[in-house]
Amino acid sequence: MTMSAFDNDTRLTALSGLPPAPGTEAAFAGHVNPAWNIGANPNGGYLLAIAAQALRQCVPEHPDPLSVTVHYLRPGLAGEPCQVNTQLLRTGRTLSTLRATLVQGGVARLEVLAAMGRLDEPGAAAAPVITLPPPDIPPPEACPGRSGSAQGVALSILDRLDIRLHPDQAVPGAAGRAEVSGWIRLADGRAPDALASLLMADAFPPAVFGLLGMVGWVPTIELTVHVRRRPAPGWLLGRFWSHDLSDGRVVEDGALWDASGALVVQSRQLALVRQA
Amino acid sequence: MTMSAFDNDTRLTALSGLPPAPGTEAAFAGHVNPAWNIGANPNGGYLLAIAAQALRQCVPEHPDPLSVTVHYLRPGLAGEPCQVNTQLLRTGRTLSTLRATLVQGGVARLEVLAAMGRLDEPGAAAAPVITLPPPDIPPPEACPGRSGSAQGVALSILDRLDIRLHPDQAVPGAAGRAEVSGWIRLADGRAPDALASLLMADAFPPAVFGLLGMVGWVPTIELTVHVRRRPAPGWLLGRFWSHDLSDGRVVEDGALWDASGALVVQSRQLALVRQA
Repeated sequence: MTMSAFDNDTRLTALSGLPPAPGTEAAFAGHVNPAWNIGANPNGGYLLAIAAQALRQCVPEHPDPLSVTVHYLRPGLAGEPCQVNTQLLRTGRTLSTLRATLVQGGVARLEVLAAMGRLDEPGAAAAPVITLPPPDIPPPEACPGRSGSAQGVALSILDRLDIRLHPDQAVPGAAGRAEVSGWIRLADGRAPDALASLLMADAFPPAVFGLLGMVGWVPTIELTVHVRRRPAPGWLLGRFWSHDLSDGRVVEDGALWDASGALVVQSRQLALVRQA
Repeated sequence: MTMSAFDNDTRLTALSGLPPAPGTEAAFAGHVNPAWNIGANPNGGYLLAIAAQALRQCVPEHPDPLSVTVHYLRPGLAGEPCQVNTQLLRTGRTLSTLRATLVQGGVARLEVLAAMGRLDEPGAAAAPVITLPPPDIPPPEACPGRSGSAQGVALSILDRLDIRLHPDQAVPGAAGRAEVSGWIRLADGRAPDALASLLMADAFPPAVFGLLGMVGWVPTIELTVHVRRRPAPGWLLGRFWSHDLSDGRVVEDGALWDASGALVVQSRQLALVRQA
């Protein structure tokens, strides 16, 4: 059986013995594949998945990212090796807290702080007490694919991710509000899991494009993803929106639901809006 | 002029020379005043304000916390000294990224990752492009004070913070949904600022009390606060709610508006819900 592209492109080699004791550090070596680029830069969600892969390997008993915050210090380097340095801050029965730094070219690119735990299997999770319902959107077959040409940038990542946008929101500015929704899955058919959901929380066009049209660049300062359950196989449905754009900075909220309609991810990011 | 209780109780002494160069570390000594307790434990927002005070002192040119994430590793120790160790991860023209660890009794209690910058003065900020409107609630005079007895726990913090709850939401369970709103200010009349808004983002009763009634304990795992502008003097209006309670964990969203109606804070936390 061939390894999925996502698994292959987030593969890491431990450079030191594992598992580390609390307070100690570990290091992992990997490679940033240019196949996940947005323009010339690696997608931020892909880089986050690499860092989270290192965290998962540090605490195999707590494989799921329950709460992950990443600060993007500098763009990643596509096609270059990377190193992820991790530190276990605390470990308990149900949770481990760790930090990770993704380094390329001797310089820190991402700083990550995360709580790792164990989520239920898709079929085993109890019904939520309160949940955010998914939006009502046409099925994937009726939604156009995300297009690089609509955004004036080469989207290599679309060879790895199949992204279908709501027909009323596929063209920047058409929605008339800061919102985008649609479907997402890995292009090679690999089923989504908690790690891939981190990537998918940062793979849609910026929600502000729906209001402002295509703006030049919306670099993420900080992204926090809460993974609420392991996704069932199939498409994920994503919705991303903003209620808060001020002084050149936007807070974008997001959510992903799995094929059973269960809420899998809540996300929020702070990004700069640099209008061309 | 007497120093405000908030300023006095978050005061820190630098233990090493400042400012640090990128990558280097600094340390600060302070004291956790039991006046901010919820039951026997210091309020998490108060401890976060102490840590953020250290960050602010590291980068005086970037005094405002634009995005702050804290993981609560262990409860703080009321009435005990604390040390905050900081590390500057990156500094640029408009942003500095730092981490901080709050230590008491030789053990890390809080781990913080933050982007610091400079927000406009309340009167100087441009109108937002999109913003979240404040809820319509009765004026502070018509809202009952938050009460410790309604929650079965001693709330020393109510001598420091004046918190008035929506009349329909003041009794746990009365709202019938996971929501609480109300007014908040420092009891001694000190005007709110970006640092105090971190505290105020974590000083209302948990929103799940509105749905479930008083549950025993809602310990925060992780809290992220985005400060969007410096608040105008006067009361802040807070609203906290949840759309997502599942498997004993809740994602609580919140927002604070200042006396001019401007959105000052968006917050989100992941917490455990331990029903008694």
